[in-house]
Amino acid sequence: MIAHAAQYNLLPKSVAVVGCGLIGASWSGLFLSHGFNVKTWDPSAEIRADLAARVQGICAQLAEMKSGEGLSRGTLVVEPSIAGAVRDVFWIQENAPESVPVKQAIYAEIETAASPETIIASSTSSLIWSELATQLRYPQRFITAHPFNPPHLMPLVELYGNDPAALSFAESFYQTLGRKTVRLKKEAAGHIANRLSSALWREAVNMVAEGIADVAEIDAALVHGPGLRWSVVGAHMAYHLGGGSGGIEHYLKHLGPSQEARWASLGSPSLTPDICAKLIAGVTAEAAGRSITELEAERDAGLMRVLAARDAPPK
Amino acid sequence: MIAHAAQYNLLPKSVAVVGCGLIGASWSGLFLSHGFNVKTWDPSAEIRADLAARVQGICAQLAEMKSGEGLSRGTLVVEPSIAGAVRDVFWIQENAPESVPVKQAIYAEIETAASPETIIASSTSSLIWSELATQLRYPQRFITAHPFNPPHLMPLVELYGNDPAALSFAESFYQTLGRKTVRLKKEAAGHIANRLSSALWREAVNMVAEGIADVAEIDAALVHGPGLRWSVVGAHMAYHLGGGSGGIEHYLKHLGPSQEARWASLGSPSLTPDICAKLIAGVTAEAAGRSITELEAERDAGLMRVLAARDAPPK
Repeated sequence: MIAHAAQYNLLPKSVAVVGCGLIGASWSGLFLSHGFNVKTWDPSAEIRADLAARVQGICAQLAEMKSGEGLSRGTLVVEPSIAGAVRDVFWIQENAPESVPVKQAIYAEIETAASPETIIASSTSSLIWSELATQLRYPQRFITAHPFNPPHLMPLVELYGNDPAALSFAESFYQTLGRKTVRLKKEAAGHIANRLSSALWREAVNMVAEGIADVAEIDAALVHGPGLRWSVVGAHMAYHLGGGSGGIEHYLKHLGPSQEARWASLGSPSLTPDICAKLIAGVTAEAAGRSITELEAERDAGLMRVLAARDAPPK
Repeated sequence: MIAHAAQYNLLPKSVAVVGCGLIGASWSGLFLSHGFNVKTWDPSAEIRADLAARVQGICAQLAEMKSGEGLSRGTLVVEPSIAGAVRDVFWIQENAPESVPVKQAIYAEIETAASPETIIASSTSSLIWSELATQLRYPQRFITAHPFNPPHLMPLVELYGNDPAALSFAESFYQTLGRKTVRLKKEAAGHIANRLSSALWREAVNMVAEGIADVAEIDAALVHGPGLRWSVVGAHMAYHLGGGSGGIEHYLKHLGPSQEARWASLGSPSLTPDICAKLIAGVTAEAAGRSITELEAERDAGLMRVLAARDAPPK
């Protein structure tokens, strides 16, 4: 594999975004705001027609956060074919539906037109590298690079691949975009973050099923309790601080058994029609008449405030 | 039960803090900063001697956050007996060790001196109301009121009791202190927040055990991914937004089965010596030489920045 960093400095700074739903549009706005030209492709004529306006809204949010400030914004091109989108780019971000055959068909088309050194980064949330890479002619340039929704605001990108050089290049590229990358040592369905989310939500669903608390109360407990703290301190580190001056070693020795007892008391709910009905009713009550669009706007505004404050340079 | 709110307006505004370790000191600083006089008791002479200085540090953090601003600070008194601490107060916050007999012995002593209407609020994290209330002469005035560490910064207080009037009064009192209260419909070990934390940490431990990622990478994924988002949007609501325009109903219908498959793939680790050694080594690497005190100071500074930004009134 050639030195990607050198390639990145020499080639025209164009990237491709293949698949332009929610995630692809968000990536496009992020790339553009950091001065990259973006060539896009999507099979839907409707998505292609709306894309410029949607990306414009994302760039406006990033400008409000001063992310990429001082860079001249790149240009957005909507291409009629995958081959057109991926020619002469150094990076391809793929955001197709979560289907192995759909993604593999796209990779086959990409490989007819893209340089063998160009990185193909899949945003897949639920599929794993080894399932997706099997048909690739050049699998070393293929990585999974899972963002967290919405990708232009959430810093996390989770990386997995089989070539350390490709992963190092991915880290430096995403860091240029203000992202925080983590690397998996071993691939896993759901990577890290969605496994954590699923584990937590299972117990959140269990508490609704068991009648311990309502949906809105559980969400409020999370937002004003562990969620808030986890925006600053990770779960392992929180137990280190929970161990007092003896740290996690003290915690494990003295409270390890009670933690294991707690684990044994957690639930394993199924998403039965009855539980689904309770979840839907509970979320409807929590939304209190706010539409998805309004809730998303509130989320984004909250994330922008928190991010700006959290990651501010120390006074 | 008499109307607590009326009592609260008529009596001298004094509260008692029984047990003044980490949690009791934090509560004391919060009460003082909101203008209440605080009478404290702790069995340890060392804790009694250091308390004023520790509480001073907490009040300084709250002053920096402008929490309770404009109120004249109450006075702190260290009492030599439980009876002295709880006489003529309208609120008793108990923060004794997590032992049913220890707490029950304290409640017996409280009931010899405190008015039968005075609320006894236990900060217990792992015990439940019905275990603790059995020996009380006036169990209706007893509630569990679990804060999240550190209580003077973290807004969450989780409430459970058997008297709606006592719970309503608790809500209004804690809200006066800028807290966010949630109510359990049914008591549960770990209340809501620690059940969610345990569920998430179980999978975090599992990923270390399985070699999927290192401790520091898992913590980084949480802090820059789901933790950050959960500081703004709860877990149930996040799946509502993950369902696109169809919301959680669409999500459950189309992605419910894949969520159940994910649940089935999560791990059930035990805290074996080998796994504990990996956790300790991983946290030590993540701490990178920072002491517990330094890590706590970083956590507090981060929480103060995030809280100020998140809960700022809209522009």
